[in-house]
Amino acid sequence: MSNTDNERTRTYSWRDPMETVALFKGNRPLDVLRATLQSGRPLAPMLQTVNAQLIEVTEGRAVFISTPSEYHYNPAGVVHGGMAATLLDSAMGIAVLSSLPAGMIFTTLELKVNFLRAMTTATGEVRAEGNIVHLGRTTAVVEARLTDAAGKLLATASSTCLIMPLDQRR
Amino acid sequence: MSNTDNERTRTYSWRDPMETVALFKGNRPLDVLRATLQSGRPLAPMLQTVNAQLIEVTEGRAVFISTPSEYHYNPAGVVHGGMAATLLDSAMGIAVLSSLPAGMIFTTLELKVNFLRAMTTATGEVRAEGNIVHLGRTTAVVEARLTDAAGKLLATASSTCLIMPLDQRR
Amino acid sequence: MSNTDNERTRTYSWRDPMETVALFKGNRPLDVLRATLQSGRPLAPMLQTVNAQLIEVTEGRAVFISTPSEYHYNPAGVVHGGMAATLLDSAMGIAVLSSLPAGMIFTTLELKVNFLRAMTTATGEVRAEGNIVHLGRTTAVVEARLTDAAGKLLATASSTCLIMPLDQRR
Amino acid sequence: MSNTDNERTRTYSWRDPMETVALFKGNRPLDVLRATLQSGRPLAPMLQTVNAQLIEVTEGRAVFISTPSEYHYNPAGVVHGGMAATLLDSAMGIAVLSSLPAGMIFTTLELKVNFLRAMTTATGEVRAEGNIVHLGRTTAVVEARLTDAAGKLLATASSTCLIMPLDQRR
Repeated sequence: MSNTDNERTRTYSWRDPMETVALFKGNRPLDVLRATLQSGRPLAPMLQTVNAQLIEVTEGRAVFISTPSEYHYNPAGVVHGGMAATLLDSAMGIAVLSSLPAGMIFTTLELKVNFLRAMTTATGEVRAEGNIVHLGRTTAVVEARLTDAAGKLLATASSTCLIMPLDQRR
Repeated sequence: MSNTDNERTRTYSWRDPMETVALFKGNRPLDVLRATLQSGRPLAPMLQTVNAQLIEVTEGRAVFISTPSEYHYNPAGVVHGGMAATLLDSAMGIAVLSSLPAGMIFTTLELKVNFLRAMTTATGEVRAEGNIVHLGRTTAVVEARLTDAAGKLLATASSTCLIMPLDQRR
Repeated sequence: MSNTDNERTRTYSWRDPMETVALFKGNRPLDVLRATLQSGRPLAPMLQTVNAQLIEVTEGRAVFISTPSEYHYNPAGVVHGGMAATLLDSAMGIAVLSSLPAGMIFTTLELKVNFLRAMTTATGEVRAEGNIVHLGRTTAVVEARLTDAAGKLLATASSTCLIMPLDQRR
Repeated sequence: MSNTDNERTRTYSWRDPMETVALFKGNRPLDVLRATLQSGRPLAPMLQTVNAQLIEVTEGRAVFISTPSEYHYNPAGVVHGGMAATLLDSAMGIAVLSSLPAGMIFTTLELKVNFLRAMTTATGEVRAEGNIVHLGRTTAVVEARLTDAAGKLLATASSTCLIMPLDQRR
């Protein structure tokens, strides 16, 4: 809903994030992720906030989509780097989570993003795909790529995650 | 405004980002940033989206604050890594911008974030401070730290930026 | 040649690095790299120092090999992380160089390495392959992977390079 | 010793790296590092290979020096990026090691280097100083800076390390 004076307004909703967190207890993460995907239920509030959604998940791989909008813009008049970082981090995190057995969780230790092309409202739908590169006992390395609908590469990322039992979570 | 069934709703507003972009033409970026700060006008829509605000800017240094909220959560029940990335990237970008003469702009080539401690709604206000490390003719290197109100370090970041004339912008 | 008291000695040679540098003037980098490869002449002294060699180069792609030795060890009793970094940086740099037209050169702005498995003298020959991900007018993004003879992944890397005319080199 | 035809030769020595490794068993790493420093005994063969030496170590902080030489050069006629990476990784690794109690060891998960200024044989002695940023139970984050004798910043780095008992080492 746009108001006068170049002001625009957006209203969106999310659910208590602890509902999803509770599902992971005692279940294989990939099963929870697939059920969430099939139900159409959003995965987490931050994804509502930036308007992204999970569209595919298999073991070690996850895909998120979003459409860059004016409310993602930075002061330079293009989409904020934090938007690409959020999409890529989401794809990498779910790729790792989908690889873990029941009772295990992870935390992201570090994230690096290379920005190749700026996004604008003319970019259209973008796709962040994360893939596990290495899954060890206590750490995982994962990569992701952000592309537009024509397959043009917009950004790349890599990340290191620490894997731990759900009940020893930091 | 919370609805039934654990659903929560948020409404927020922003302005046409090209209003701010237009201000940079012909003006020293630091002057524009200071005027924006004094006017209380938000700097860019993405900052409204994640609810962050610039609170300090001097040459080569910028500080943003935000309060982690439920709508920043990831599927693991803590604040999404994209939130820290967005705050740190904002602080680093404005630190670089504040260092440039009139007629120059930058683009971020890469960003690395180290996550030290998870944020939750119990964290309270956090502060991202960016500082220029190196300002060359065509590139800048900048660092940032994210801390809580007690000064506890939550995340660190570094970034490389490419500097170019406003009219040769990629 | 091993001496008494657990002391070992190594003698190696290199040539004036400016000989290779001179070849790039007025020539397409890929042609110079191919001629160097065919001649069996080492590419640069640092490669002699760590005992690595270029074995393949095509446009946008380069492969180096080396065999981890005791003189690459760190104080923890495995190969120093600087060895993987040097091999990966070499592969990425030559992948970028091989993509440039005559008269252009590059400098590496940043490098990130993820270490997946430690190397020892039992690892045998390792292979670092670099591939261009994005080649723009002024910047390039490149990635590399380090593997053992069985194809097991030892380390991954990404890097951002700045491209410039040879005569405007920083 | 330089030969004819622009060929140069270097001979250097190192000791069995397992001698140092053995010292860490049952001892506090900082005590071993200090004793090694006082004895003038090189810390590890890779440091002999690139001709670097530890000159200071306190809890959470380590300093290495080296003088860029022709045998550190890359094909572009300046010091190879792997040299800065090796010095910075050394300083960060020893800064972490110096912080650990007896019986604990670490492995480096990732390393990022930002290169600010090229090094040449005209640079003179350089100094890599590593400092712990965060020491957790299972991970550490560490940073380093490489400077010349005038204090000019040449490169910066950050790294994530995984801490583990010496007997559970990966």
